[in-house]
Amino acid sequence: MTSPLSTPGPTLGVVGGGQLGRMLGEAAGPLGIELIVLDPTPDCPASPVVRDQIVGEFDDEDAVRELAERSDFLTFEIELADPDLLERVETETGVPVHPSPDTLRTIQDKLVQKDALVDAGIPVPEYRAVDDAAELRAALDEFGTPAMVKAREGGYDGRGNAPIESPNDAESVLDSVAGPAMVEKFVDFERELSVIGVKGEGEIATFTTGENVHREEILRETIVPARAPEDVLERARSVARDVLELMDGRGVYGIELFETAESEILVNEIAPRPHNSGHWTIEGAVTCQFEQHVRAVTGRPLGSTEQRDPTVMTNILGDVEETQPAELHGLDTVFSTPRAALHWYGKRDVRPLRKMGHITLTDQGVNADGSAEDLDQLLARSRDLRDGVTFDKA
Amino acid sequence: MTSPLSTPGPTLGVVGGGQLGRMLGEAAGPLGIELIVLDPTPDCPASPVVRDQIVGEFDDEDAVRELAERSDFLTFEIELADPDLLERVETETGVPVHPSPDTLRTIQDKLVQKDALVDAGIPVPEYRAVDDAAELRAALDEFGTPAMVKAREGGYDGRGNAPIESPNDAESVLDSVAGPAMVEKFVDFERELSVIGVKGEGEIATFTTGENVHREEILRETIVPARAPEDVLERARSVARDVLELMDGRGVYGIELFETAESEILVNEIAPRPHNSGHWTIEGAVTCQFEQHVRAVTGRPLGSTEQRDPTVMTNILGDVEETQPAELHGLDTVFSTPRAALHWYGKRDVRPLRKMGHITLTDQGVNADGSAEDLDQLLARSRDLRDGVTFDKA
Repeated sequence: MTSPLSTPGPTLGVVGGGQLGRMLGEAAGPLGIELIVLDPTPDCPASPVVRDQIVGEFDDEDAVRELAERSDFLTFEIELADPDLLERVETETGVPVHPSPDTLRTIQDKLVQKDALVDAGIPVPEYRAVDDAAELRAALDEFGTPAMVKAREGGYDGRGNAPIESPNDAESVLDSVAGPAMVEKFVDFERELSVIGVKGEGEIATFTTGENVHREEILRETIVPARAPEDVLERARSVARDVLELMDGRGVYGIELFETAESEILVNEIAPRPHNSGHWTIEGAVTCQFEQHVRAVTGRPLGSTEQRDPTVMTNILGDVEETQPAELHGLDTVFSTPRAALHWYGKRDVRPLRKMGHITLTDQGVNADGSAEDLDQLLARSRDLRDGVTFDKA
Repeated sequence: MTSPLSTPGPTLGVVGGGQLGRMLGEAAGPLGIELIVLDPTPDCPASPVVRDQIVGEFDDEDAVRELAERSDFLTFEIELADPDLLERVETETGVPVHPSPDTLRTIQDKLVQKDALVDAGIPVPEYRAVDDAAELRAALDEFGTPAMVKAREGGYDGRGNAPIESPNDAESVLDSVAGPAMVEKFVDFERELSVIGVKGEGEIATFTTGENVHREEILRETIVPARAPEDVLERARSVARDVLELMDGRGVYGIELFETAESEILVNEIAPRPHNSGHWTIEGAVTCQFEQHVRAVTGRPLGSTEQRDPTVMTNILGDVEETQPAELHGLDTVFSTPRAALHWYGKRDVRPLRKMGHITLTDQGVNADGSAEDLDQLLARSRDLRDGVTFDKA
């Protein structure tokens, strides 16, 4: 049951203060919940919109303990959080951590994650642990090439993932991912889908299935609903519900899926936190993923996941050759476009392909000529908006 | 034109850090605009969600100057701001103030405000300045009773307003409002309406006309659209546009109107800032009044004012006999109701009838039995939600 609300409100301590922490802060304010974030970067993205930032590494024991002592609930917005430390601090201070550190531990290791999914009967692409080049070559014999070699831990936004084209490259590819690795059979997918799910106290909920467009392994756009048959959307949601049932601890989960050429749904990866492919929910759904995460972690009932309008989210990535102070040009068109919403992450420097913000465009329903707008058009307009902004002064 | 966006972003200095400042802060974050608020209450409502608070009185010259020196733009969220001081600081520092201090000055004095409207041909209730009891009695001879005596300056939420029933009460009623006063003819209104308008750089826009329900002169609910014929809604919007044309300086204006028994539209009062009757726009419109104000004041193009769904906003007021630390009970139902949104203002103490938060309910379109939900039902459900929360521990 929701405890009575007073001021200062319940405090949610968040390990990580990047854009996800910032958007958690933006969503928590109206609920009367205050945020403190722990992040090593002084004046991190979340900092200007939350109560306070503790400057420290994600695995700094004193800093995490201070965070717990100043909080009523703990969560994390980055998989680099340390599950052992969180578990220790939770036991010592009695401040609950959601999702559970054990879930974080399971998900951090992509091999353990996949094993857990398989044990629960959830479909995943074929995979195998590979400890050396001989094992990798043996797996390729079975899976064929190309295949995807993945570092078991620490990868994100494509880092730690390396496609392999030939058994001859086994040594070099294993070297490039560094550390314990696994290999996955190449999935000839029709679409990449994702479902944002949320697990509350005795309830689970899922948002509409989205379609993700990646390039260079980085998410570019999410289209919601995905341009797939209704039964595919529903099966994706059903698989996501199975994943949520399996997870231990409340919170939002981003569940990335493949829709195969045979319309089969396979789980690609799980993130135990709000996910880039769920940013569309801020404008596109009744209760956004960030508010849902805050509600879930603090023990409040979940909100409605109902979609309000067809929506496309497009990432604003660093379109520069090298790191430099960020200065985004060309925003007038974004501000002037009805139903376009800008989200700026507050990062000082732009780096090549760094996520700097995003633009959400919700459907107006009709074109200027009176005909109905479809998702392809909405996507094209979103891309035009995004292509109209640039960090590149040249 | 919108200047390039960098981090730290452009800073908006706000005189006042109450709930309006808080909601401005919540809306500014995604745009990459940072807020600093000036407010005499340490840890004021806006404080936990903005970059910084300067603790000082609204008319503290040093504090306002410091605010200007740390800001790129200045605005105010409370009419108690000092227009002379703002004008001086604007001239000295070159930091633009929006809306213009002169507009604030005009609006602060309800007599001057009414004179300006009449000069522009905008319909208002009959009114007259009254400097003493004899003048008040003379006006009542003409207007009849009841009538409304108003302090020309400083009133809000009904403070400074006093109904008068008989010429015999002229002395006592004038004493009760204190200071320069005016009297207005009683308007036999059908409905109280309001239109939230916004004036940008060379553009104006208005939101859907809302219907306000007051009790004890305090706003209880806003219903949008107002339950009035379409032509009344449009005429209210048209009058609001005339008001916006008259105002000097960019920003959001709350325009309260009477719809008379003869379907005439009269301007009651204008607020040169986001207004309680515009809180519904956060969930109910594409771009909310707070984002619009931030856009307008910082020189960005305005967003769409299109309404997304039928909406009712209901205020959570202090239901206590005396001031005490705020503790709001009964929130589970609010959180569990689809499309109900809570907004908590972060005030430490609750006082009788103090505005502590609000609940917005947007229409689901259909009742559980499949029939269409109408505004009366939406209003009834909103009132039930609000009546289910209480500060009263008894």
